[in-house]
Amino acid sequence: MSFVEKVTTAGSKDYVDPSQRIAVFDNDGTLWAEQPVYFQALFLLDRIKQLSPKHPEWAEQEPFATVLRGEPEKILSADEKSLVALAMATHGNLTDDEFKIVVRDWLKSARHPQTGLPFTEMVYQPMLELLAYLRAEHFKTFIVSGGGIDFIRVFAEETYGIPPEQVVGTRNKAKYEIRDGTPVIVKLPELDFIDDGPGKPAGIHLHIGRRPIFAAGNSDGDYQMLDWTTSSEGARFGMILHHNDEDREFAYDRNSSIGKLDKAWTDAETKYWTVVDIKSDWKTIFPTSSSK
Amino acid sequence: MSFVEKVTTAGSKDYVDPSQRIAVFDNDGTLWAEQPVYFQALFLLDRIKQLSPKHPEWAEQEPFATVLRGEPEKILSADEKSLVALAMATHGNLTDDEFKIVVRDWLKSARHPQTGLPFTEMVYQPMLELLAYLRAEHFKTFIVSGGGIDFIRVFAEETYGIPPEQVVGTRNKAKYEIRDGTPVIVKLPELDFIDDGPGKPAGIHLHIGRRPIFAAGNSDGDYQMLDWTTSSEGARFGMILHHNDEDREFAYDRNSSIGKLDKAWTDAETKYWTVVDIKSDWKTIFPTSSSK
Repeated sequence: MSFVEKVTTAGSKDYVDPSQRIAVFDNDGTLWAEQPVYFQALFLLDRIKQLSPKHPEWAEQEPFATVLRGEPEKILSADEKSLVALAMATHGNLTDDEFKIVVRDWLKSARHPQTGLPFTEMVYQPMLELLAYLRAEHFKTFIVSGGGIDFIRVFAEETYGIPPEQVVGTRNKAKYEIRDGTPVIVKLPELDFIDDGPGKPAGIHLHIGRRPIFAAGNSDGDYQMLDWTTSSEGARFGMILHHNDEDREFAYDRNSSIGKLDKAWTDAETKYWTVVDIKSDWKTIFPTSSSK
Repeated sequence: MSFVEKVTTAGSKDYVDPSQRIAVFDNDGTLWAEQPVYFQALFLLDRIKQLSPKHPEWAEQEPFATVLRGEPEKILSADEKSLVALAMATHGNLTDDEFKIVVRDWLKSARHPQTGLPFTEMVYQPMLELLAYLRAEHFKTFIVSGGGIDFIRVFAEETYGIPPEQVVGTRNKAKYEIRDGTPVIVKLPELDFIDDGPGKPAGIHLHIGRRPIFAAGNSDGDYQMLDWTTSSEGARFGMILHHNDEDREFAYDRNSSIGKLDKAWTDAETKYWTVVDIKSDWKTIFPTSSSK
């Protein structure tokens, strides 16, 4: 609040014009939970099962065979290449409108394996309040995620109040074509850009075109976004969530394969990034007041 | 105005929620002039001359040699490949902040070869009024241009009231790196995406993530954007500017190498696109009231 006051008080030496009040938020582990695995990975697995009757060849073909044998944890802890192969097979060749429907349907019916909650209810109440507070102070809020841009856009507006044009993420290539006489956008099964690590400042540059003054993340994948945001002149704010509440949520940091927080945590003090200690700083975790 | 009334009147069967009121505008020939050549091409030529002392090899190397011999018109009427080579040589390896300064300086000093006006004064007064009118009706206005995204972003906010995050355009690859201890974004001399023709709906999909309900253009390069915008259900508006006023501006259409308007004009009637006849429909062309 002291940062926001500085940049919004006319006459303050740190005053920032409303047009320049850009705030960026990581999604997985920052706006919604990411354990035991990224929620989009669970979507991919469900989608493989759903599509498998049309793909008998998957029974013999990796990484699909492992998923269909009921051993998804092997894939989820496997290399990024397998996950990308799954994403390409399940997201590719749909039109953008078809893909939206698939994701929307999944979000309605799917439940978290531990809490039994819909995934869109596993968003962090304090972060929703922070988004609303910044917007009330004329900040423009953006998501900058390693997750799929088209996936997040399906629920970001309703869930976070962030419209599709303010979502930056990893993307497939896409092309325009005429299908059955109607112009459509088709998602191609080809990765175009990974919006993670050094990709985050590059994604911000492409989509937003100026440097944010506020960035929030929770893992080393957010390091460059935080560094780029806070290294320019003037008042800047970098925030890191430290997941340390095993009872109400999850506890993981330096040794986690998902959402590893190591270097960014070590450097937080010298970089003046504010570390949020979830266990002691957050009264509520999820809006429904459920805990894990 | 009848279209805007329909989509903004609560209870109307064509009512569109403000969050969905997306309006997209081509830039060259739609928001500012594009004759005798694209203004960004003139920027490229000036930049080649400015950089040439550091590149003695250009004296012998095409397409640079032709520019430096003072025959730029040969390049400007040449293939797209030469123009891209010039763009890569002049835009690449600068940081985004350095590039902004170069463009800003050029815009301050450069003048149109025929009117003697600064290029940012060769914007169309009726289009500025249209942008303001749509924004007052809670439309979000975007530029979707075949020109360079980083080039347009330098002047779009001041000139059109369109912030950088609402500009879509042709782009180089860019990467994040640490230079002299400081995080920066560097423009790479490699083309990433051409936002023209079928690239325009793909660019809109990437940056905006939903289909516009209003599109304005002036050439066949806008055909797919107009078609995609107006082919979905509900009230939609497609606008084509026809440059036919040789006295006050420029007259060109089916046979022009810059801003060719042929198929989009032919199909305008069956597609229900509104053709603006500049000569008779526009009282004023440029804000300064100067004419060509």
